[in-house]
Amino acid sequence: MTPERETVKEYLNRVIFGTDTPAGKAFDLVLIYSIFVSVAVVMLDSLQVFAVEFKLYLNAAEWFFTVLFSVEYALRIYCTPKRWRYVRSFYGIIDLLAILPTYLALFIGNINYLVVIRLLRVLRIFRVLKLMRYLEEANLLTRAILASQRKILVFFGTVLVLATVFGALMFVVEGGGHGFTSIPNSIYWTIVTITTVGYGDITPQTSLGKIIASLAMLTGYSIIAVPTGILTAELNQELMRERVKHACPACHGVGHERDATYCKFCGEELPKRTHL
Amino acid sequence: MTPERETVKEYLNRVIFGTDTPAGKAFDLVLIYSIFVSVAVVMLDSLQVFAVEFKLYLNAAEWFFTVLFSVEYALRIYCTPKRWRYVRSFYGIIDLLAILPTYLALFIGNINYLVVIRLLRVLRIFRVLKLMRYLEEANLLTRAILASQRKILVFFGTVLVLATVFGALMFVVEGGGHGFTSIPNSIYWTIVTITTVGYGDITPQTSLGKIIASLAMLTGYSIIAVPTGILTAELNQELMRERVKHACPACHGVGHERDATYCKFCGEELPKRTHL
Amino acid sequence: MTPERETVKEYLNRVIFGTDTPAGKAFDLVLIYSIFVSVAVVMLDSLQVFAVEFKLYLNAAEWFFTVLFSVEYALRIYCTPKRWRYVRSFYGIIDLLAILPTYLALFIGNINYLVVIRLLRVLRIFRVLKLMRYLEEANLLTRAILASQRKILVFFGTVLVLATVFGALMFVVEGGGHGFTSIPNSIYWTIVTITTVGYGDITPQTSLGKIIASLAMLTGYSIIAVPTGILTAELNQELMRERVKHACPACHGVGHERDATYCKFCGEELPKRTHL
Amino acid sequence: MTPERETVKEYLNRVIFGTDTPAGKAFDLVLIYSIFVSVAVVMLDSLQVFAVEFKLYLNAAEWFFTVLFSVEYALRIYCTPKRWRYVRSFYGIIDLLAILPTYLALFIGNINYLVVIRLLRVLRIFRVLKLMRYLEEANLLTRAILASQRKILVFFGTVLVLATVFGALMFVVEGGGHGFTSIPNSIYWTIVTITTVGYGDITPQTSLGKIIASLAMLTGYSIIAVPTGILTAELNQELMRERVKHACPACHGVGHERDATYCKFCGEELPKRTHL
Repeated sequence: MTPERETVKEYLNRVIFGTDTPAGKAFDLVLIYSIFVSVAVVMLDSLQVFAVEFKLYLNAAEWFFTVLFSVEYALRIYCTPKRWRYVRSFYGIIDLLAILPTYLALFIGNINYLVVIRLLRVLRIFRVLKLMRYLEEANLLTRAILASQRKILVFFGTVLVLATVFGALMFVVEGGGHGFTSIPNSIYWTIVTITTVGYGDITPQTSLGKIIASLAMLTGYSIIAVPTGILTAELNQELMRERVKHACPACHGVGHERDATYCKFCGEELPKRTHL
Repeated sequence: MTPERETVKEYLNRVIFGTDTPAGKAFDLVLIYSIFVSVAVVMLDSLQVFAVEFKLYLNAAEWFFTVLFSVEYALRIYCTPKRWRYVRSFYGIIDLLAILPTYLALFIGNINYLVVIRLLRVLRIFRVLKLMRYLEEANLLTRAILASQRKILVFFGTVLVLATVFGALMFVVEGGGHGFTSIPNSIYWTIVTITTVGYGDITPQTSLGKIIASLAMLTGYSIIAVPTGILTAELNQELMRERVKHACPACHGVGHERDATYCKFCGEELPKRTHL
Repeated sequence: MTPERETVKEYLNRVIFGTDTPAGKAFDLVLIYSIFVSVAVVMLDSLQVFAVEFKLYLNAAEWFFTVLFSVEYALRIYCTPKRWRYVRSFYGIIDLLAILPTYLALFIGNINYLVVIRLLRVLRIFRVLKLMRYLEEANLLTRAILASQRKILVFFGTVLVLATVFGALMFVVEGGGHGFTSIPNSIYWTIVTITTVGYGDITPQTSLGKIIASLAMLTGYSIIAVPTGILTAELNQELMRERVKHACPACHGVGHERDATYCKFCGEELPKRTHL
Repeated sequence: MTPERETVKEYLNRVIFGTDTPAGKAFDLVLIYSIFVSVAVVMLDSLQVFAVEFKLYLNAAEWFFTVLFSVEYALRIYCTPKRWRYVRSFYGIIDLLAILPTYLALFIGNINYLVVIRLLRVLRIFRVLKLMRYLEEANLLTRAILASQRKILVFFGTVLVLATVFGALMFVVEGGGHGFTSIPNSIYWTIVTITTVGYGDITPQTSLGKIIASLAMLTGYSIIAVPTGILTAELNQELMRERVKHACPACHGVGHERDATYCKFCGEELPKRTHL
């Protein structure tokens, strides 16, 4: 390999993956606008009134963006030092899923609409616009959610078992009629009910069915409290932990407000809060 | 300018913007009753049965109140020392929006019903009736909401991206039928579903659609916990901060109840809590 | 007044209002069963199938219970020392409302079904069965709710203003069609939507209407957090206050668990927790 | 009894109830897979398309599993030392309910679908796969729920009384029409409404009915806060108690994070957290 070629690769890497240089910033901004425009194109394409009249233009635009993102995906693979790692990373997979549907639509109709998944690529906007404070918030949330992850899994297991038992019960009680045509369908109804969504496409008609449905609703109503309770308690703990971590370098006092600039015990200036 | 004219302006300012003099109080009370009556008139006007029979009277009443509020708006601009600042303030904009619809209805039909926005002017009632304790509560709430603002923004961004991805998925799975006629329509369905509103005007009919819908509901069910958790945790912190701020002037002990009158450590009388 | 007559009055008072003597307990238990049976009678009466066949018996039962409760109401007024105070008390009003509908039904049809309000009289069960621990819980809840009362009032005011503004907006946007036939009707739709009930009897059909509806839902979704957050934070404070109140008589240490029997600092036996 | 026979019984007990030996583990894993497969069979059987074509095979599979679980149930009774205690235990009852429906279906049609209740047996998976950490989480949740049990009972009593009063009111107001055909039916509607499920199969049509319905919704909207608030506050207390219990053996300092390995005060290694 010649040194010039090395430089091209490095230059591309800096522009495509980096955000510190003007070129890198510009690239990311163009990318984000392209994503929004391409998603808008797909949405318009799904609207009958537009699709009929502007079919040709919308199709062209869709292919233009898909080819553009495909080239970008190829360049990313080319210029990253650890290719395989990028390909298997969260963003690597999203980048691939963001172009695949258009190609697959040549074989399977309509699947091209799934390209809206490229919206997830916009999460990069945080990195670009130095919205670090937002990321920090997301971080706090993520930590609280991770801390309560296992509790929430236990909770969802319970909900699914409950939904199955209630579903079978309603299937038997309503005698397979009134929309409760099978156990899976009745489970669907139970989930619609205990999550308090309540479409009303399937509703109990028998007296016993209505009583069981009322029980299912009250159950749903009270278990809605569980995930909220779990997350709130964990978030509370996180906020307290935040405070304790924020210590004064002079007197080592802790417990400062999140927005404090001076130590409330000795008046010493506090260190800037580290972002992320 | 003559001194008399100055006085008129100042007098008007005191009556219209002030709430301390009997005249100022009376003015605000009359204003608030006028707002309630005018909103009632608009509501009656929207009811077919009344609109047909009393069209003339209702129309007259509507114009009467609009002219009244227009004169008031003009006087407010006239008598305030910093005109431009008032016009651009929250109340200035509301005051304008409260009269505009009636005039615009001369060109665009039905838009006059939007005058109900003048209800927002009633927020002034807090100032008038010295309902400072309520304002203090609203203040505590506002502070907690502001503190969790960014977290909630991150949360809503996530919800919208999720709604778009789920929407496109349902559009493809249900094949554009059963109400899922376009991606925007499917996004509308997703929002109806994950907020657990569940109208039932659009419901999945295919098995795969029902499974994805169940996932969307359970997702919605668990993320409903996030804003509640955020706000509750922040509110908790606010209530604790309140306590800490409420310090005894004699022994500097903190942590008194919100309604404490005497220090619980040395019995000294506590200062009255500052309102706002 | 003769002393014998005094005794009758006092005896009645002890039996009807008291719960300590066997006669008083028996009276209250009979009363509670009568209430449940009479409510069951009214419910059966509202069912077409029963009403047709057993009209006579159900009617007789209804009048039997109404006369019974009327006699009881008269006796209560007769034997209580402070008559006017009883009549205007919470239970006094409930006791009257529990018999009125049957009499009013002679003039206004169907109104007799409102006698189910006598269910509220069963709240006396707490007093009778010495379910003081339950009352204590209810007390803790009540204190937390009272503490957050003003915050919740501010909150409901905001919700109603919001519902009116959204309602008028939808009335204008949907052009008075698709069920949005008047502003009050649109306000009803807005309340159905932002409380996430979502019947689906009225749904937006225009694109703009769907966008505004989505906004209303997301608003409702996020403000559902407000009352929960308020109450949870207050309840937290109440539970902490509970702990602090539970002090050791020997070492004055505080912060014992609610179910602690011995002081965790000095091992001294803690006083029994006072109920109520 | 001969010693050999003792050994068979003991061996069975170890395999069926124990989870420490390879045989015991294998038995439990086979059992869990059997349960999942048998539930899948019942679900397929409830789907018309499958039921018609594969009736014979599905029926055979159902009976195969029922006989299998019956034999297992008999063996469990046979080999457990305290038979009566097992039969009356939670798992003993579930084990019986998991086979009964198939036999009862010989007399009462369709009831066989209730065998899905055998899903509850899978809760044993926790014991088998040593998912103790999950159990610990479930334990924390259970403790918090138990601690708030009485508060939630008080709450549900209130909801039911409220539903009855609102139900009777709507029955009278809507005049027995628009789906409000009886008081029990109206109570069903009230529960559907205040739990914010909102099917829309029954909706108020009169103006007064809509106003009362709006009140019911706002009531439901605000009382949804109560169970969430209760549970969150209790969970908070539980998490704090957890911390306090986790004391350092060297300096007796408390308040360590749940995942701390070393004492944050003296650096001593902390004892492993006891599971369950």
